[in-house]
Amino acid sequence: MNSTPKLKLSQIGSRLRPPQIMALMNAALENPDLLSLAAGFTDTSSLPVGDVRDVVNELASRGGPPEFLQYGTNRGRPGLRELLAERSARLDGASSGTISAGHTLIGNGSQQLLYLAMQVLCDPGDIVLVEQPTYFVFLEMLSGLGIRPVSLPAAENLEYDVGKIEDRLNGLKRSGEIGRVKAIYLMSYFANPSGICRGLGEKRELAELLVRFDLNVPVIEDAAYRDLWFDEPCPAPSVLSMSEWQGFHRLYLGTLTKPYSSGLKVGYAHASDGGLLDRMNWAKGHHDFGTANFNQAVLEAVLADGRLDRHLESLRLSYRAKMFCLHEAFERFGLQKAGWKWRRPTGGLNLWARAPDGLNTSLDGPFWKACIESGVFYVPGSLCFGDSNEESYVRLSYGVLDHASLERAAERFAGAAATVGLADT
Amino acid sequence: MNSTPKLKLSQIGSRLRPPQIMALMNAALENPDLLSLAAGFTDTSSLPVGDVRDVVNELASRGGPPEFLQYGTNRGRPGLRELLAERSARLDGASSGTISAGHTLIGNGSQQLLYLAMQVLCDPGDIVLVEQPTYFVFLEMLSGLGIRPVSLPAAENLEYDVGKIEDRLNGLKRSGEIGRVKAIYLMSYFANPSGICRGLGEKRELAELLVRFDLNVPVIEDAAYRDLWFDEPCPAPSVLSMSEWQGFHRLYLGTLTKPYSSGLKVGYAHASDGGLLDRMNWAKGHHDFGTANFNQAVLEAVLADGRLDRHLESLRLSYRAKMFCLHEAFERFGLQKAGWKWRRPTGGLNLWARAPDGLNTSLDGPFWKACIESGVFYVPGSLCFGDSNEESYVRLSYGVLDHASLERAAERFAGAAATVGLADT
Repeated sequence: MNSTPKLKLSQIGSRLRPPQIMALMNAALENPDLLSLAAGFTDTSSLPVGDVRDVVNELASRGGPPEFLQYGTNRGRPGLRELLAERSARLDGASSGTISAGHTLIGNGSQQLLYLAMQVLCDPGDIVLVEQPTYFVFLEMLSGLGIRPVSLPAAENLEYDVGKIEDRLNGLKRSGEIGRVKAIYLMSYFANPSGICRGLGEKRELAELLVRFDLNVPVIEDAAYRDLWFDEPCPAPSVLSMSEWQGFHRLYLGTLTKPYSSGLKVGYAHASDGGLLDRMNWAKGHHDFGTANFNQAVLEAVLADGRLDRHLESLRLSYRAKMFCLHEAFERFGLQKAGWKWRRPTGGLNLWARAPDGLNTSLDGPFWKACIESGVFYVPGSLCFGDSNEESYVRLSYGVLDHASLERAAERFAGAAATVGLADT
Repeated sequence: MNSTPKLKLSQIGSRLRPPQIMALMNAALENPDLLSLAAGFTDTSSLPVGDVRDVVNELASRGGPPEFLQYGTNRGRPGLRELLAERSARLDGASSGTISAGHTLIGNGSQQLLYLAMQVLCDPGDIVLVEQPTYFVFLEMLSGLGIRPVSLPAAENLEYDVGKIEDRLNGLKRSGEIGRVKAIYLMSYFANPSGICRGLGEKRELAELLVRFDLNVPVIEDAAYRDLWFDEPCPAPSVLSMSEWQGFHRLYLGTLTKPYSSGLKVGYAHASDGGLLDRMNWAKGHHDFGTANFNQAVLEAVLADGRLDRHLESLRLSYRAKMFCLHEAFERFGLQKAGWKWRRPTGGLNLWARAPDGLNTSLDGPFWKACIESGVFYVPGSLCFGDSNEESYVRLSYGVLDHASLERAAERFAGAAATVGLADT
C-alpha cells in the first residue's frame, strides 16, 4: 500500500481554522443538557410549519410541470426578487421602484452574499471597516480570506464615537494604510451582537465623516434583524435610500431566515448599482449557479400572500416576551447586583451584557468554565471585536429557549457570575 | 449629489467574467421559442412532485418542534450523511462503513463542494489536471480562481491516451511546472460532456502512471451522472474503493440534483480522509454555515424509504428513451450523412458529437448563427477543452425537451448542418 503524501493546501486552505460558530452550533445540537444562550438559532416552536406545508401543497396542486423542483436562474427567481425589492422600498418609506429587482441577488442566506462581496472587493492584506462590536462570523470570514478588520470606535452607549473614529482614520492615513480600506460593514438594525438600532443622525454623520476622508468605498449594510422589532421598527431608512450615502456603492443584505425559517436558508442583496452585484452574481455562478429554486418558490408564495407579515406579527411578540423573560430573570437572580450591566434591546435576538471590570469572559477564562459547569453557555464578547482586546462582554441569545429554560439559564448564568468574583480572574 | 467613484475590485473580482452557464440557462429560460439542446437541466415533467409533497406532509405531521425548518449543522444532517455513505459504498460493491458519514460533507449541489476543494487546494497560478473534454463550468471556475487547467490527452474513442499523457507530464517536468499540479479532476461515470464511462483498467492505468510521476496529488472524482445509467451501471468502483488510488487523497462528489430534483440543490462529498474535508467544511462555515436543512430533511426521508431508487427506475427509462429519440432523429434527418459523428451514450444527459473537420461550432462561427436562426442551440465543444483549441465538437443535452421537441430540435440542427457546409467556415 502506498503511503499518502502530506496534504498540500493553498494559502486560503492553510489560513482556515474551525469556525467558532460550528463549535457553538454543535455544542447546542449535540449537548442537550447544556442550556444555550450562545447559538443564534431562531425559535423552533414558532417556525411556520403549517404555512410551509400549505404552500408546498398549493405549489404541487397548481398543475403544469413542477418548475419549482427544477434549476432556477443564478440570480434568483424574478418574482421573488420583485417582491423583496418592493418590500424593502416600503420599509425604507421609499417609492416603489427605487430598490429594483434587477439589482437584487438571491443567496444561501445573507452570509453567502457577504462572502461573495468580500471575495470580489478585497484581496488578502486589505482592510474592512467594522463596528465595535461586530458580527463574529464575519470576523472569522475576514480572517479566512486574509482581510484585516479595523474597528470604528464606539462610545459607552454603543453609538459611533465620531471623535475617536476620526482619530482612527487619521491613524490609517498617517500609516499609509488608508488606501487598503476596500469596504465598510455596518449592522444598523438591532445589530448582532450589540442590539443597537442606529439613528438617522448617526448614519448621516458617519457618511459625512467618511466622505471627508475620501473613504467612499463600498458600504455593506447587513439588515438581518430589521424585521424583528419589538414595539416599533428602527426608524432610519437603509443606506440605499439616504442621500448622504449616495456617493458610495451600496449593498444592502436582508434575509428570510431570521424572520421566517432558518431551515430554508434564503437571503438577498439589493445593490445601488449593477457593478458590484454583477460580479457577485458571476462569482455565485462558480460557487453553485443559484440558490435552491424550491426554497425560493416557497418563499415567493409566502411573500405574495402576506404570510410573512402575518408570521412576523406573532414572531415579534414571541421574541419580545423572551427578551423580557431573560432580562427580568437576570434582575431577579441578581446579575445586576453582581456588577453586570446591559441595556434591554428593542429588537433582534441578542442581549449584549458587560461583566464587572476585570472579569474575563473568554473561552479560556474562569467564568466560561463556571458557566459550563453550571450548565449554560454564551458567546464570549471577545470574538466580536475586530482589533481590540475586550474581554468583559457576552452575547446572550434568547431566540431558542422557551421561557422556563430561559429562566433556568439566567439562574445558572447569574449563579456563575456570583461565584466567579474578581478575585478569581 | 456626490459622484460615485469607480468600483475597485479584488484580483478575483477583476478576473471574473459572466459564466457561460448563465447565458445558456438564461437563453433557455427567457427564450421559449428556441429549442435548447444546451442547458443541462433535468426533465421537468419527471420531477418527483408527488414524492416531495408527501414527504413534506409527513414531516409536518410528525409532531414535535419542526427542526427541519431550523438551522442544521455546517457539515450536514447526520442521518442524510449516513444514508449517502451507505449508498455510495453499495454502488462501489464495498462493505458498509468503508465510506463513512464522518468523512461526508453536504453542499449546495456538488458544484459548491468542487469550489470549496479548489479554494483549499489551489492558489492562483497552480495547475489542475483535467480530462479532454471536461465539464465547462469547472473550467470557468478555474479561470475565475486563476487556476490553470492542463488536459490529460484522449484517444479518438475518448479513452485516456496513456502515451500522450506521459508526454504531457514529461513536458510539465521539463518546464519545471509539475510542482504546480495541485489536483486532478476526473468524471468517470457518463461524463459531462463526453458521456464516457471509464473502465476499471483505464482508471488503474491512470493511477499507476500518476504514481510513476510522483503525482499523487488529491484526486477529485465527480460522479454527478453515475445514477443515470440506461442498461447497466458503469462497472468500475470509485477511486475511494480502488487500491491503485490508495496513495492519493481522494474526494468523491455525488449529487441528488440530477437523479432526483435540481430544485432542491443538494450534493455531497465523501473523502478518503479528514484532512481535505475538514478544511472544506471550515471554508463552508464562512460561505454559508450549512446547506438548507429543510432540503436535507426532505432528501433524508426520500432516501430512507426507497423513494430515490423507485424514482430512478422510471427516470432511467425516460432519459434512455429521450437519448434514443434524439439519436434516431439525427439519423433520420441526415446528420450522419452531413459528416457528423457521435457515439450513443450509455447513460447521463449528454450526447457529444463531432462536426466534419474544419467546421467551427464556436459562438462566433457560422454554424452557431445558423442554429440560432433555425431555432435551436447547443453548448459549443470549444468551451469544454482546458488547453487545446478544438472547435468541431458540440454538447447536446436531451434531458429537458419532450420527444416531439427533441425531434424538432434534431430537424433544425440537422438542417443547419446541411446548409452550413465547409465552404462557409
